[in-house]
Amino acid sequence: MSYSSKHIEQAVHEISKLPGIGQKTALRLALYLLKRPEDEAIALADALIKLRTKTGFCSRCHNISDTEICSICANPKRQEGLICVVEDIRDVMAIENTGNFNGLYHVLGGLISPLDGIGPSELTIANLLKRVSEGNVDEVILALNTTMEGDTTNFYLYRKLKDLPITISTIARGIAVGDELEYTDEVTLGRSIAQRIPYEQSLPKH
Amino acid sequence: MSYSSKHIEQAVHEISKLPGIGQKTALRLALYLLKRPEDEAIALADALIKLRTKTGFCSRCHNISDTEICSICANPKRQEGLICVVEDIRDVMAIENTGNFNGLYHVLGGLISPLDGIGPSELTIANLLKRVSEGNVDEVILALNTTMEGDTTNFYLYRKLKDLPITISTIARGIAVGDELEYTDEVTLGRSIAQRIPYEQSLPKH
Repeated sequence: MSYSSKHIEQAVHEISKLPGIGQKTALRLALYLLKRPEDEAIALADALIKLRTKTGFCSRCHNISDTEICSICANPKRQEGLICVVEDIRDVMAIENTGNFNGLYHVLGGLISPLDGIGPSELTIANLLKRVSEGNVDEVILALNTTMEGDTTNFYLYRKLKDLPITISTIARGIAVGDELEYTDEVTLGRSIAQRIPYEQSLPKH
Repeated sequence: MSYSSKHIEQAVHEISKLPGIGQKTALRLALYLLKRPEDEAIALADALIKLRTKTGFCSRCHNISDTEICSICANPKRQEGLICVVEDIRDVMAIENTGNFNGLYHVLGGLISPLDGIGPSELTIANLLKRVSEGNVDEVILALNTTMEGDTTNFYLYRKLKDLPITISTIARGIAVGDELEYTDEVTLGRSIAQRIPYEQSLPKH
């Protein structure tokens, strides 16, 4: 691609380093910014710098946080004995949005994946084990995705935690609310029958 | 979405203003930047600011340029009498990449589109007419997209230019090189038969 301005060339080069954004999309975004008021590009640049230089991670649960301890860990109304283990920060947001969880989190920062060179020591697993063995934890919920890496990590955590005096649970898998049986894949449908629950439990709580 | 950091919230807010990027993609990009070295986010932010504050437009053809007159207009080896009219800067890049055009450009900055409130005065049409009537222009090539807006703009330009002592041409439409006849739409196929050219003209030049 021949650019008639070195500034646009540089901008396209930097934007196209982002995941899922190729040269053409980067150029489209750069030309968009050129057409918009100057403030808008500056506000974006400023937000990116602040994001990278001022955001930190909670020293306890590794959730993203502007403070040493995040607002979830610092909230005295949350159940300290209940820890939900998730892969990354997006999962925390997704669960928080349901409004159905009142415990704390532990963000692993990834999944065990030998093919990508990610072993247990690359994740925050040691810290999780420390939290569980030190604190008054009653239950650990494993809420990882059902990929090969997720299952591997689940099993690794299970082996590390199983001798501790805590309950280890995992989130329920089944047919999504509103989905139709006939279009559901066999594994999910099979599991949702095998792991059926008493009808009363499925009723909304008052 | 509940964010545990106001910096990430702000970054997502700014990133999701870009066209084609929603909240989820913006969050994915923000989390990606958080995982990368600090330099990378700063280089990106810096490139965006330079792009917006230092890039200008060529005063002659309205192509993007770091200088008053762009490198294409300033090149004495290019045919001054041949002007290719395009919608935006991406079209200039696309034509430059073919290496088949040795004239100058005129970037309209959009197309006439009454529904979007874009009339001839919002575009650089007055400047084009001035260039053509003042300079020693022999030919104007209309290279706009074949949308309703493109056709409208083509026709508007044709009416404005037709009494001047110049050739007005338009780029050839037909079946793309390598495409198969049976999968081509009827309008394109019909046009490529009606506007057939002598076989000798289709041979590569030596």
